[in-house]
Amino acid sequence: MITSTRGQTAPFIAMDVLAEAGRLEAGGADVVHMEVGEPAFGAPRAARRALAGADAAGETLGYTSGLGTPALRQAIAALYRRRHGLELDPERVVVTAGSSAGFVLSFLALFDAGQRVALADPGYPAYRNILGALGLQAVRLPATLETRYQPTPEMLDAAAAHGPVAGLLVASPANPTGTMLDRAAQVGLIEACRRHGSVLIADEIYHGITYGADAVSALELTDDVIVINSFSKYYAMTGWRIGWMVVPRALVRPVQNLAQNLFICAPHPAQVAALGALSEEGEAEAAGHLADYRANRAGLTGALTELGFREIAPADGAFYAYARLPEGWTDSRAFCTRLLQEHHVAATPGLDFDPERGGETVRLSYAQSPARIAEGIARLRALIAAGP
Amino acid sequence: MITSTRGQTAPFIAMDVLAEAGRLEAGGADVVHMEVGEPAFGAPRAARRALAGADAAGETLGYTSGLGTPALRQAIAALYRRRHGLELDPERVVVTAGSSAGFVLSFLALFDAGQRVALADPGYPAYRNILGALGLQAVRLPATLETRYQPTPEMLDAAAAHGPVAGLLVASPANPTGTMLDRAAQVGLIEACRRHGSVLIADEIYHGITYGADAVSALELTDDVIVINSFSKYYAMTGWRIGWMVVPRALVRPVQNLAQNLFICAPHPAQVAALGALSEEGEAEAAGHLADYRANRAGLTGALTELGFREIAPADGAFYAYARLPEGWTDSRAFCTRLLQEHHVAATPGLDFDPERGGETVRLSYAQSPARIAEGIARLRALIAAGP
Repeated sequence: MITSTRGQTAPFIAMDVLAEAGRLEAGGADVVHMEVGEPAFGAPRAARRALAGADAAGETLGYTSGLGTPALRQAIAALYRRRHGLELDPERVVVTAGSSAGFVLSFLALFDAGQRVALADPGYPAYRNILGALGLQAVRLPATLETRYQPTPEMLDAAAAHGPVAGLLVASPANPTGTMLDRAAQVGLIEACRRHGSVLIADEIYHGITYGADAVSALELTDDVIVINSFSKYYAMTGWRIGWMVVPRALVRPVQNLAQNLFICAPHPAQVAALGALSEEGEAEAAGHLADYRANRAGLTGALTELGFREIAPADGAFYAYARLPEGWTDSRAFCTRLLQEHHVAATPGLDFDPERGGETVRLSYAQSPARIAEGIARLRALIAAGP
Repeated sequence: MITSTRGQTAPFIAMDVLAEAGRLEAGGADVVHMEVGEPAFGAPRAARRALAGADAAGETLGYTSGLGTPALRQAIAALYRRRHGLELDPERVVVTAGSSAGFVLSFLALFDAGQRVALADPGYPAYRNILGALGLQAVRLPATLETRYQPTPEMLDAAAAHGPVAGLLVASPANPTGTMLDRAAQVGLIEACRRHGSVLIADEIYHGITYGADAVSALELTDDVIVINSFSKYYAMTGWRIGWMVVPRALVRPVQNLAQNLFICAPHPAQVAALGALSEEGEAEAAGHLADYRANRAGLTGALTELGFREIAPADGAFYAYARLPEGWTDSRAFCTRLLQEHHVAATPGLDFDPERGGETVRLSYAQSPARIAEGIARLRALIAAGP
C-alpha cells in the first residue's frame, strides 16, 4: 500500500526514544527517563478523586460539546483571573485533547494549504511536523543563544521579505530551551505580526513552571491571539490528553465545527479530572512539584557545566536542559544511543528540535524526583568519563 | 481574525442538536435524546474498575507509544480471533483517540491534498467534513434504498470515469441507515478498488451490534485495507475517545509518526479502561445491551411505519432508524426543531448525512432503555398527530 507524501511525516524522536527505553525496561533494565517532557508524578489526587466521584455517582461520561463542558471552560477562565488578573469570557475557551489538538485545530482554522507559518528553531518537533502534514510551510527562524533561542521582530521581517507569513508560532517558556519572552519581547512580536498580517499563536503549555519572573500570557497584551495550553505539564496529566485553547470570539464557531468533526470532543473522563486539578487542593499539589524541578535544574545545570557541556540554554521555565555536547562529542544521536544502551539514561538528541543544527545538542528533561535525576547525572558522568 | 477556507468546515448537526438539547435541559426540560449515536449506558463496570485499579496501584498514566499500550493492542488482536476467527498480528493494531483519530490518520497517511475519495451518501457527516478540512475531495456516491444505501462497484466505476479515485470509504453497519455489506458485496467492492487503484477504508464501528447475520470484517477478505473501529458504540464508551485501526504492515510506521506528532497518543486512562472492557465480564455487559437495542428497533420501526414514515432503511445493525418524513412533512430541519422545542425529543435532520437529499429524512438513535424510547415514540406520535 502506497502512502501519501504526508504519510512520510518525520518521526517524533523523543517518542521513539521512549519506545526504545520501554523495550529495555521490558528486558529488566532500570531506565532513568529524561527523554520526554513528562512529569513523573501523575495527575493530582484531586483530579483522580473527581473522576472516581463522577464514576461513583453513575455519570456516563458521554460526548460533550466540542468546546468542552461548561464547568471546565468556566474553571479555566477563572485560572486566568488567578494567574494573570484577567477577566476572560469562558465562551472563548475551547477544551481540547491536549495541546496537540489545539495545534491541529488552530492551524486548520487559520491557514490554508501552502501558507507560510514562522516559528523558531530549536522548537517542539510536532509544530513543524503537524504544519507539514496539513500542507502548510514551516518557515523556520534559526534562533541562537543571543536571542535566548526566541524569535525576534527582525526575524519575522526577514521571513516576510520572502513572501507573506500567515502566522507566527511562539512558545514561552519554550521547549527545548525553557527560555521565555518577557512582556516587551511579546509586545514587539505582536506589533511585528500586525505589520505583516500574521496571526500570533502562543503556546503557553509551560506556564506555571518558572524559576524567576512569572510567565506573561499573550492574553494580557492582546485579544488577537490564539493561546494554547494544557494540563499535561504543570498539572502532570500528560497521558490524559487534556488541554485548552483561548481564541478570539469570531473563531469560536469555526473551531467548534472543526473540533466536532475531527475529534467530536476532548475525552470526558479527562475533562472531569481536569476540573478536579483546578481545585484548591489540585493547585496546591501541582505547585508542590516546583521545588523538585528547581532543585533538579540547579543540580543538572551545575553538572552539565562541570562536564563541559556548552551553550547551555538559560532556562527561565519548563523542565529541560538544552545544551551542546562537550568538546570531542560530535554526534548527539550516537551520544543518546550510548547513554541509553550503556547507561540506561534516555535523552533526546537535538535533531528532534532543530533538524539543521541539532546534531551536537541534547535535551534532558528533569520533571521527576531529585533522587532520580541525581542518578541520571551520575550515569551521565560515567559516559562522559568513558569518553567519545 | 480571518479564518481559512477550511475554517469554514460545515457544522456537525447532530452535535449542535445535542448542545441545544443541553440548553433546554439546563432550563429544566426532560429531553429524550435520540440525536447522537451514543449508548446511554456508560462504560462497562469492568472498564471503570480497571481504571480505578490502575489508579489505586499508583500508575501515573503518562504518555504511551503512539501505537497504544502493548496489552491493549494484543487484546484487540484477540478480539478478531473471538469474533472472526482471524489471527491478527498485534503489530498491525494502532490504538487511536476514537474512530475520529483513525479517520484523520488514515486520510493523512494515504492521500495527498486534492485527491478524490469516494463514499456513499447518506453517510457519517464527519467523513466528508474531515476530508474537506484535509484538502481532499469527497466524491459522494448517491446511494438509494435499492442498494440498501450502500455503494456498489458500478458506482465506483462511474466515479472513476471522471478521474482517479484514491480511496473508497465504506461503513457496515452504516450510519445513519444501519445497513450492512455482506461478504459478496464486500468482495465486489474490494475487486473494484483493485481495478481502480483505490485504497479501501472500512469503518466497522458498529460491529457487534447486529440483528440478523453477524457483520463481516473486511479483514476476513483482504489484508489490503484500513479497518477503523472504536469502543464508543458496542462498549458504550463514547466520551472516553478510544478506538483503533488495523493497518497493513507497511503503514504502521507512517501512521505511528503521524499519530505521535498529531496526537502523541490515545488517552491513557481510556486505554486502561478499554482493556477492562475486553475482559469476559466487560464483553458480557456490552452484549447485554443488544436485547434493549433489538426491542427498541422493533418498537420504533413499527411506530414509524404506523405513523406514515416512508423509505425506512432496512437496518441490519447499529442503533438508528433512518426514514423519510410522512406525507405532508417536507422540511426535516423544521420537523426536528419542533420535535425538540415542543416535545423535547432530540433528533437529527437527514441533511447531516446527505446534504443534497436529506431535507426530508430524519435519523432517530435508539441506544437506550426501551422505556425511554417508548417515551420518545409517544412524543413523536403527539407531533405527528398535531400535523405539519
